[in-house]
This record gives sequence, structure tokens and C-alpha cells, in this order.
Amino acid sequence: MSSRDGRAFCIQIFGESHGPVVGVTLDGLPAGILLDENEIAAFLKRRAAAGSPIATGRKEEDLPHIVSGLKDSFTTGYPLTALFYNKDAHSADYGFLPDCPRPGHADYPAIVRSHGYDDLRGSGHHSGRLTLPYTFAGAVAIQVLSQLGMEIYSHVVSVGDVKDDELDPLCPDTAALKKALSHPVPALNKAASQQMFDAILAAKAEGDSLGGVVEVVCTNAPVGLGAPWFDGVEAVLAKQFFSIPAVKGVEFGAGFAAATMHGSQYNDPYQCADGKVQTVSNNAGGLLGGLTNGMPITARVAFRPTPSISKAQQSISLSALQAGNEAAKILEVKGRHDPCVAVRGVPVVESAMAVGLLELWLERNGDQSLTGGIPHAEK
Amino acid sequence: MSSRDGRAFCIQIFGESHGPVVGVTLDGLPAGILLDENEIAAFLKRRAAAGSPIATGRKEEDLPHIVSGLKDSFTTGYPLTALFYNKDAHSADYGFLPDCPRPGHADYPAIVRSHGYDDLRGSGHHSGRLTLPYTFAGAVAIQVLSQLGMEIYSHVVSVGDVKDDELDPLCPDTAALKKALSHPVPALNKAASQQMFDAILAAKAEGDSLGGVVEVVCTNAPVGLGAPWFDGVEAVLAKQFFSIPAVKGVEFGAGFAAATMHGSQYNDPYQCADGKVQTVSNNAGGLLGGLTNGMPITARVAFRPTPSISKAQQSISLSALQAGNEAAKILEVKGRHDPCVAVRGVPVVESAMAVGLLELWLERNGDQSLTGGIPHAEK
Amino acid sequence: MSSRDGRAFCIQIFGESHGPVVGVTLDGLPAGILLDENEIAAFLKRRAAAGSPIATGRKEEDLPHIVSGLKDSFTTGYPLTALFYNKDAHSADYGFLPDCPRPGHADYPAIVRSHGYDDLRGSGHHSGRLTLPYTFAGAVAIQVLSQLGMEIYSHVVSVGDVKDDELDPLCPDTAALKKALSHPVPALNKAASQQMFDAILAAKAEGDSLGGVVEVVCTNAPVGLGAPWFDGVEAVLAKQFFSIPAVKGVEFGAGFAAATMHGSQYNDPYQCADGKVQTVSNNAGGLLGGLTNGMPITARVAFRPTPSISKAQQSISLSALQAGNEAAKILEVKGRHDPCVAVRGVPVVESAMAVGLLELWLERNGDQSLTGGIPHAEK
Amino acid sequence: MSSRDGRAFCIQIFGESHGPVVGVTLDGLPAGILLDENEIAAFLKRRAAAGSPIATGRKEEDLPHIVSGLKDSFTTGYPLTALFYNKDAHSADYGFLPDCPRPGHADYPAIVRSHGYDDLRGSGHHSGRLTLPYTFAGAVAIQVLSQLGMEIYSHVVSVGDVKDDELDPLCPDTAALKKALSHPVPALNKAASQQMFDAILAAKAEGDSLGGVVEVVCTNAPVGLGAPWFDGVEAVLAKQFFSIPAVKGVEFGAGFAAATMHGSQYNDPYQCADGKVQTVSNNAGGLLGGLTNGMPITARVAFRPTPSISKAQQSISLSALQAGNEAAKILEVKGRHDPCVAVRGVPVVESAMAVGLLELWLERNGDQSLTGGIPHAEK
Repeated sequence: MSSRDGRAFCIQIFGESHGPVVGVTLDGLPAGILLDENEIAAFLKRRAAAGSPIATGRKEEDLPHIVSGLKDSFTTGYPLTALFYNKDAHSADYGFLPDCPRPGHADYPAIVRSHGYDDLRGSGHHSGRLTLPYTFAGAVAIQVLSQLGMEIYSHVVSVGDVKDDELDPLCPDTAALKKALSHPVPALNKAASQQMFDAILAAKAEGDSLGGVVEVVCTNAPVGLGAPWFDGVEAVLAKQFFSIPAVKGVEFGAGFAAATMHGSQYNDPYQCADGKVQTVSNNAGGLLGGLTNGMPITARVAFRPTPSISKAQQSISLSALQAGNEAAKILEVKGRHDPCVAVRGVPVVESAMAVGLLELWLERNGDQSLTGGIPHAEK
Repeated sequence: MSSRDGRAFCIQIFGESHGPVVGVTLDGLPAGILLDENEIAAFLKRRAAAGSPIATGRKEEDLPHIVSGLKDSFTTGYPLTALFYNKDAHSADYGFLPDCPRPGHADYPAIVRSHGYDDLRGSGHHSGRLTLPYTFAGAVAIQVLSQLGMEIYSHVVSVGDVKDDELDPLCPDTAALKKALSHPVPALNKAASQQMFDAILAAKAEGDSLGGVVEVVCTNAPVGLGAPWFDGVEAVLAKQFFSIPAVKGVEFGAGFAAATMHGSQYNDPYQCADGKVQTVSNNAGGLLGGLTNGMPITARVAFRPTPSISKAQQSISLSALQAGNEAAKILEVKGRHDPCVAVRGVPVVESAMAVGLLELWLERNGDQSLTGGIPHAEK
Repeated sequence: MSSRDGRAFCIQIFGESHGPVVGVTLDGLPAGILLDENEIAAFLKRRAAAGSPIATGRKEEDLPHIVSGLKDSFTTGYPLTALFYNKDAHSADYGFLPDCPRPGHADYPAIVRSHGYDDLRGSGHHSGRLTLPYTFAGAVAIQVLSQLGMEIYSHVVSVGDVKDDELDPLCPDTAALKKALSHPVPALNKAASQQMFDAILAAKAEGDSLGGVVEVVCTNAPVGLGAPWFDGVEAVLAKQFFSIPAVKGVEFGAGFAAATMHGSQYNDPYQCADGKVQTVSNNAGGLLGGLTNGMPITARVAFRPTPSISKAQQSISLSALQAGNEAAKILEVKGRHDPCVAVRGVPVVESAMAVGLLELWLERNGDQSLTGGIPHAEK
Repeated sequence: MSSRDGRAFCIQIFGESHGPVVGVTLDGLPAGILLDENEIAAFLKRRAAAGSPIATGRKEEDLPHIVSGLKDSFTTGYPLTALFYNKDAHSADYGFLPDCPRPGHADYPAIVRSHGYDDLRGSGHHSGRLTLPYTFAGAVAIQVLSQLGMEIYSHVVSVGDVKDDELDPLCPDTAALKKALSHPVPALNKAASQQMFDAILAAKAEGDSLGGVVEVVCTNAPVGLGAPWFDGVEAVLAKQFFSIPAVKGVEFGAGFAAATMHGSQYNDPYQCADGKVQTVSNNAGGLLGGLTNGMPITARVAFRPTPSISKAQQSISLSALQAGNEAAKILEVKGRHDPCVAVRGVPVVESAMAVGLLELWLERNGDQSLTGGIPHAEK
């Protein structure tokens, strides 16, 4: 059981929601990569609550303190660790734990798994707060991929029943994707975005929450990344996506819709365009047999509604159960939570894609690939 | 890039479709586990084509030759290797390769990845033939899990537009699931099964193929397997599911439908039943925060239609492209293929779930857990 | 390339000698283990320079700040991270780098490896300072092993030409080993210890350094830990020992002397003693075929003399070499260094043994083994 | 517990001494590497007993059957598996097992570890027979390294008390090393080689065995392979060396002798020679801070005497012990064994060095590094 992943690009996450620090160590970054810390901060801000009415009221600075692996803005080739201090935790809100587990949360199995030694306040190591160091890892990976020509974009496909416009998987409108970031919810269609925002506010007003779907795309990936089987791009990316708390579904390209299609309809025919091998459609989402085929990589990631709601819910008292007494109990949770995690999940999904693709790229190209030609004296 | 996975229970797959052998090594099995080789053979038979009109015409015996790690039907605690001999490969069917890549297949990116050194005949290491040793791994894992009380079942949810009955995720009808195995396609509803069968035959008659969805469930898993983040049950199982060729979507519990729900609707309330903590509904598919909660684990796995079809398709000639000539080319593939991989994929999906759960179980309990109390003299 | 190791018990080290922090994350510790922080501090003090005339003049507090994974002195079962702040670094002492690499140091290959982006001050991530977080990992592992009955001891076998008394490998004198900690150098023989001390002081006075050998022993290990091949106890422990900077030789049991012996002399005959299987001698150092046999595990670890000396040394100017000029250069290094790293290396060697054995123990027994019987309500 | 190792270049060994097959899968080899199967066979022959009076009488063909990953003598970039059939096993020789464990062998801890389910005949998976597939892995790695300019040589430094000439670590005499292969024992000095041979024959005549030391060297390794800590070259190579059965000591460069030296004597001064950075001496064995420095990499590996001897030895009866009866027992083993495993261990040691260095090289350069420039159409 571990909170680390990756061979060539290894991420180790640590920290608890109400402990002093959450953080991450990135091991395997080549030496000599220029990182723009302002860009990292800007990317992390997209995940931050930032006073939005549709985000948690918890106020955290969310500034990374990089304590190793970076010198004069260049990576040293040794582990890069970033720390984030927790300052606005309200542990008193969790007095019902460990006796009365919240429905939809990890509380009950976490108590069993840890024999009661888990730090359950704010969900401990299970907390969405841990997506902060993960998103830091993503911000770094995105910069590295960008230096290799790859760009990652995403939008909210749906919130509850509200749907965004469809993205063209062959030729995604990157200008529209960038513009979506200025909408109330990062959807392509501004009216849909406003409806999503209103639906979330309405759910919040009722002490409830909503689910949503995020679509993510990577342009300009080289042909031939990945492998059959366990290093297949789908396998590697899905592992990252499903590591994000609240994700319950992942599909690539046409995804579940592919299961309703005939092969003659699904297979993407080849053509030659701009002197390159391209496909005429992109049902495969840029992935054939676990390998990138040079077309945009597309995936959709489904988030369940936030488990934390303030509506009364049916739970049980574990101590009453052990004592052989009537265990049923009505639970009302206070806390401060996002009414729709899919929205703040957008940069987390981008991070997951970037982390997975950088792992595959480094496995293929090695850790000196990015700097091989730079003589030390010219640094 | 590798064809191995797992830490505590490591699977190493090897072989090519038209090479002499495909096989698998299982490393990490505890010593002293009794394996029933007849049951393994019976399980593999569910994956075999076996003369079915809706399966490939390739005839293979598919009998495992276990060459290490098993003595007198008990595991030795050392690597267990099984070999399968390839006898009915028709390499002449693949003369169009490597010049003219098949749409929907790995051919083109595999050529780029391997710089032309891949063995493309029958898709080489990318072939569905490799699901044979993987299903062997699954057959072994299923037996071990079964000795621990866990059982795995599955059915075909849909083929094209034909849908099976829904399975109750709280209390799956295991008798019906067992009976489904005797239907033309392993669906719960016999009439739907027949319609699926007919739809596949019709696609085949047109030189076409069809997609489908498989649902899989594990009963009786202990509470607290898994972890947050990268060892989360969803993350680990999804990596296995997406390693299966042709899988393009995976969801757990309510899955994508969860994204349309409110939290008050999605969260599974707790109750006390039979002296145990249970949930009233099972939208979470038995998984909270990456951990098992003791309810049935449910997942759905979407297969795209088989890429191999005999209908004419638009492709290109790579040599013509390199020579600067007109590259467009119409491709007609012969070969022998399943018109709907989802059907033969059923035991492969069960295998994926078993492999992932055994990995998590062994990480949690160690490799001497199954035999700890058995003194050698009593063997 | 990475600074992490272990599957069941994973250690991730990070930090640079002259950066703000060095630290370590331990991933895989079972939940519910009571850690005594005073004991950890006491163990780390054995590694600290502590004003000794035979240790570096660098003054650091060396107190661990545990920022995750521990609650009320019990492990939570999630990553445990400890940070150590660097406060007394003198970066100005390293002005000769990166132009003029120090003989015996990693400077030159590290410059090439990182294309000049390494942080070379105080040897950066290569520094002996990183043994501090590693020794923290060891201190934790030693406490866990101790709760399982295993104890680890060590002494300085030799410094330069001065030799300590031999330790009985069958029945090590643990009282004498404990007493050795109060000697000027932790050797069994007090007179030898004083001679070692004097020899180190004499080397220091000449601006020179000395090598030494450390012997380490683990008592009461269970029979059957380890495996043949790559998880063999020797393989796993040697990887840990050789990860310590300055270690150039490792032997188990009779070690190199075994190569001069006949089988009839080397093989340890079996006997029954106290109702248990024991050996009459212990040339194998408690290890047969990569497995523990229940006898004391013994190893000797050779440290080269500290590379940092203040005597003038012959080096080159890399910039002169690149410019095609005369590159030879005489280097005089200031800095503050230990004249004999073997002495402060003693707890580091104990840590290496503990880390390796805990990894093997957890692989064998799983991560819930230590707390399996503890009901959460009784916590 | 596992019989696999490596991340970028993963080796999975399988098989038992008296099972039908021993074999190995190599996962991570780049595509497009030309392998010379005759050279592989020739290398394996150096390990074979080949009717020598100082080797086991067991007669095996030892020819690799490559069943995957190779096409037209080029690697495909997918797992490469080689099988070796066991044909001359005499299981009847092991009737004393599992009751009466052989001193010096893994029998007793292996019985405990596997709870009696181990296949002990011929030592099962612990057998030296498994060095055959391992040496196959080495033969492949040596060819790949050779294509990168690196060459590996070795000689027997000592057998019992007989010593070979010393090898110059700065500039090893490769002609002499090649010539040593034609001597009765592969030592540089022909007279010493004959004395070693005679000493082994004498030990054999007495039903006894002898230990020995092998020295191995790699020339022309690039500067900067490896890393500090757990991917240090010493750590990685030592893990490989100690994985070889019967190895009990490993040292690099001056090794244990370094512990008797002063820093001013040990540190290798730099000079500029042939326009390159070189050292004046090579006490470090080409390794500084876990990194290659471009000088020859040198290591010495100590083998204990073969545990299998026919002289009577003192053991116990496990069943008598369990029954509470007198357990002492005199054991006389028949079997067929090498009287000095160090001699046949020479190519195994070379293999270990090659496997470790290829792992580090592929981590650094990625798996497409060897073939990156080869366009598929020109194959």
C-alpha cells in the first residue's frame, strides 16, 4: 500500500489534511530543465478555491516551498520536493469521527484498514487536499511536456444534466479551450457554463452536491509512446485518473460509445496529410494497442458528486454496534466543502495526464534526453 | 516499456502470436497453495474459440504446460511459469505488413515504436492471443481468491444496441450469473443473449464486427483492501482492465451515471445488517476512497468492436509515402478473427479483476499468509 | 536514477547539503506502530558530530520534524515524512567548483551526469549529510524490528591498521557491544578504541583521513526471511550498505576468508540446542541461499578514508581543459569534514541493515501484520 | 519475495533444478538489436561443465531455446524468453530430504520458508542450475554493452591459498585476460592456474571443496552512469553479485584494503591524458559517489567453497526433532557437484556486471536509444 507511483518519473505524495504539511517528491526529473515558478503558481491557482462561491470556504495560500532539486530555477537531476503548509484546518468539525462514518467517504474502510490509527480529521491522507501536491507534480510535468511540444487542455463536459459543446477529437479548438478558463465553470459554451454554475449553487443551497465529467486532450504527442499491456497509454493514464479521489469512470476516444458501434464505423481510416500519416476520424482517442498514433489523445473522466453534504444522512455508530446496541444514527456534517469536485478537478485531471505521459516519455527516452547536448561549461 | 506488472504478485507475459510460444510467469505466489489444473483448463476453455461461429477460426489447443513453481499440485513459492504452444498460425495472411497498416490496429505506431523490428504477423506481442497466458494468471488468482472466500462473476451487459438485464449491485444473483455461462453469449437474459448472438453473426456476415460491454463483480471481499492514491482499488483494477487489448472505457459502481447525480442520491447510507456494517445501496461499487467497504465490487468494461474486419478499408502505403508517391491504398484483410471480442473477453475481464485483487491482498497480508500454520512434516 | 528503494517498505530521500532541508519519506509502515521519538533522537545523536574532535566542525541540530504519518506517537499507515533543516552550511568554501573537481569525490562524474546543473556545494545530494534522513529511516526500522524481537548491534572492527577484538559470530557479546558505545570510538576493546581515536586525530593533524571497517550483527531474526536471487538477504542488505557514501566492500559471515577455506571447514554443521535447530559454527553469517537460518546475521562493511582532506592534491581545471590550455592544477580544500567516516558511519550501517530486514519482513508478512489483532474501539 | 530484478531492464528467472525447464525473460531490451546466437552459445559454454574433471558430472546440453522477442536475429522490443530443458537430473540422489538438511545449503530455511512445499531436489529454485538462464541474460547484456563500446573481462584471483597475478586496475591487460580463458582455470598466470586446478582436484579427491575469488573489470564505460544512493553503481552491481549463489563478499577498487589507507594515499589524483580527464591511480575502481568516472570498473567477488561435499557431515533429523527424539544424524551426500564453484562462476560474475550496467545505461538513455536513427523502411 503506498502513495508513490512511477518508475522513470516517480511521485511520492505525503501529508494529511489536518497535519502541518502536505507535499510531494518528484524523483527522476532530468537535470537542467528550466522551471517557471510563476507558471506553476498560476496553474495551482486554477485548483485553488480562491473565494469562489462554488468552492470550499477553507482558505489556504497553496504556495509551493521547493526545498530540494532546484537550483537557480533549473532542476538538478535529484529529487525535487515541494511542501505546502496547512494553516486553515478546523479539526473540531470532525468530532463525530471515528464513531460515525460519513456515507460516501473513506471513513469506515479506512478505520478498518488502519485498525483505528488513521488520522481521519478532514479525511487525513484521503483528503482532496492531497490533490494540491499532486497538481504541483502535474504543473512540473506539463512544463516539461510543453518543452517537448506537447500541450494539455481540458474542459468540463457536463455537470449534472447540463452539457457542454462537444470537442472535435481530430482537431480540438485550442483557442476555445483557453477561453473556457475565463468562464464561471471552464466549459466551452459560455451559456452552458453559466447553467453549470447555477446548478452547483442550487445544489449547495440545498446542502447537496453534484457530479460532473471532465474531458482532457493532449496535442502533438509523438507516435509510438506506450506499449502493449501494462505500460499501455490507457493503462498508465487510467491509473493516474482513478488515483484522483471521486473519480469513478474513465474512457478514451469514443469510449463506452465504441461498444455500440460496428468496426467499419469505429476504425479510423488512414490518410496522408501534410506529408504525415494521419487518421480521418479519431474514435481511438489517439491510442492504438496501447500506443500513441500521433493524433490528439482524448479522455473523459467522471467525478461522482462530492461525498460531503450537509443534508442529514443515515449512518451508524460503530461503538454502539460493538456494544451490541441499536447502531442506526442520523448524521449531519458541517465542514467546508466543494459542492462539485469536478470543477476544481479540471487541473487535477490535466496533471494526471501529464504525469502519465511524462513517465512514458522518460521510459522511452531516458533521463538525460532533455539535456544531452548541453556542455557544463556553457551552462 | 514492459509486459510485467505487480509488486507482491508479479505477472510477466511473453510471446508473439506467430512465434512458437506464448506464456506467463507468476512471481510472488505463496508456497503451499493447492491448484486444481482441471479448473484452470475449464476456465481457459471459456476464453477459447472452441468452434463457435462467433469466434476466430484459428484452432489452438490452449493447454497450459506448467514448467516451474508447481509440485504435486501445490505451489512451491517460487516463480510459476506456464507455456502455451502456437500451432495454427497462418503468417501468409499478413503479407500487406509492414507496408500497409490496418486501421484500428497497433500496426502503424508499433512500426514506429520498434523502428520496424516488431513481429507484426498476427499482431505479434499486441495480439489478443496474449490474453491466453493472462487468463491463465487470472485462473490461478481466482482459485487463490476463492480459497480466501472471494468469488468473481461477470456477464455481457450489451453488444451493439442489445442490452442484458441489469444486475443488482447490492446483492448480485450469482445463480443467474452461473446460468448465463450456458447461454449463446454469457448474458443473464436468455432472449437478449440470443439477440446478441444474432447481431454478431449478422456483423460477421457483412465482414464487420461489433463492440460490447462486460460487467464484473467480486463478492465477499474483506473491508479495507486498497489504499488512497496509486494503490487504490479503482486505480489498480483499471490498470488491469485497460491492459486488455480493445478496452476503451472502465467504470466502477454507478460510474459515468454518478456524474449526473446529487450527493444525497449517490452516497450509500450505512445500516447494520446481520451484525455487520453494510450499505443500503451500492452506487460506489463497493469502493470508497480507493478502499473496499465490504459490499460487492462492481465494474463495467467497454470493448470497442474488433479492429480486424474483412470489409475494404482506407489505408496508406508507408513505402509510397516515404518515396513521395501517392500513398492512399484500399486494404482488404483476410485473417481469422472474432467478430466481437467482448464475448471472449468475459473471462479475461474476470482475470483482470482477480489479478488486481490478489496483488492488493498479498500486499496487505504478505506471502506467507496463506500457509503460515502448516508445519512441513504434516504436508 | 533515483533516491528511493524498497517495495513493501519504500524510502525516498531528498535534499542537498547546502539546500534548506534534507528529509525522507517512509512509505509502507503498517498503521498503529508506537514510535518513541526520544529513542529516535538518541539514535541520531550517535551519528551527529556533537563537538567531537574527530568529527566535522559543522554544527547542526539534527532534530527530525515529522510532518506526516504519525499521530499521537502511532503510525497512521500512510507516508511518514521527516524533515531536517540545514543551518550551518558554508557555501563559500566551495568556490573551486565546478571548475576543479576534488579527487576521490563525485564532483567530476556528477558534473558530467547533470550536464553542470548539479548543486555541488558540500557535495549536494551526494553529501554525507543525506545519511541523516537515512539514519532516521534506520531508527524507525530498528524500533519496528525490536518490537518483533530483532536487535541490531555493531562495532568498529578496524581503523587504518588498528584492530578491535573479534566478535563471536555464534553468540555475540551484546553487553560488550552496548558498552562499546561509551568508548572514544565504538570498539569492543577499550585500548584499541583509544588507539583508533589517536590514529584519527593524528591523520587529522596532518590534513589527512583514515579508512575503517564496521561490523554489524542482527540477533533473533526468524528463520526463512529472504529468497533465492534478487531478494536474497545478502543482495538486499548489500544494496543498502553500498548505498552509503564511502562504502567500498561488504562481506557476510566469513566473507572473503571463506574463499580460502575447504567446504568441510566452512559448512556450519547442524545441532539441536534448546529444542531448536542451530548451527555449531556460523561461517555463513546466518544466511544460507539468501535465507536467514536463525543464527546471528553478521556483516562487515569497509569504508574508504574520507575523500575530503586539506593536504594539497593534484587535480585539473575543466575550463582550461575545454579551452585547450594546460589543465593541471594543485587543489587545497578547506571545508569541515570527518577525518574517518567509518566512525560516524556506525549507526548508518545499523540503519542499512534494519531498513533491508524490515523490507524483507514486510514482504513476507504484509503491512497489516503488526496490528492485525487490534480492534479500533480499544485503540 | 521474487526472482526478478531491474526496472528498465527487467530479468525474470524461473525453473527448478529437477523440473522440466529453467528459463529467463528479459523485458526492456530496445527493438532492433542484432544478437549473435553463436556468441551466446559460446559464452554459455564457458559456464558449462563440459566434461571437465573439476566440474559436476551432470551432463546438460545447455542450449537456449529463444521462444519470444527475437525475429531474424534482431530483438523485437518485446519480452525475450529463453528456455533450457533439464534432461540429466537424478532425483533419487536426494532421498535424505526434506528430513535431513545439508549443512551449508538452503535446505533448512527453505523448508521453513515454504512450509515444506519447496521442491528441494537438486536444491530446486536455489540450485546453481539457475545460473544458466542468468548467464544467458548476461550473454545478451554483454553483446548490447559491446555494441556501446563496453567490454567485460575477468579472471580467478585465488582458489584456496593459490593466488593469481595482480591485474593493473588503471590499464588492465586485456590480451592476457583473453588468454587466461585457455588456461586450466581462467587465471592470468599459467603456473598459478595449474596449481589452482591441482588444488581443486585434490579437494575433490578427498570429497571436499574449495572457495575462490573472481575479479571482473569493465572497460570503456561512459562517465556519469549511476547515481548517489540506491542506484549507485556499487549498490546495483553488488545486488547482482550477491544474487549469485555462494557469493559472500564483494569489493570495488581497493575494497577492504581501502579501509587501511589514508585519504592522501587512496584518492586518485586527476590528470589530463589524451585530451580526456583521467585519474593517475584507480583505487576507486572507476566509481566515485556511485557514478562511473570513465576509468575501468573493477570488482572482486568471493565465493565460499561449494556446500555440497561427499565427506560425512553432522546434521539433524527434522522429524526426530519434532517427535522429541534424538535428532543428531551423520549425513553423507552423493549427488554430482563442482568442487569449486568460483571457476564456473567466472562467466556468471561477468553476467552480473553486464546486467547491472545495462540496467543503468537504459535508465539513463531510454529504450529507444540504440535504434533511434534507424528508419523502418531501411530495416
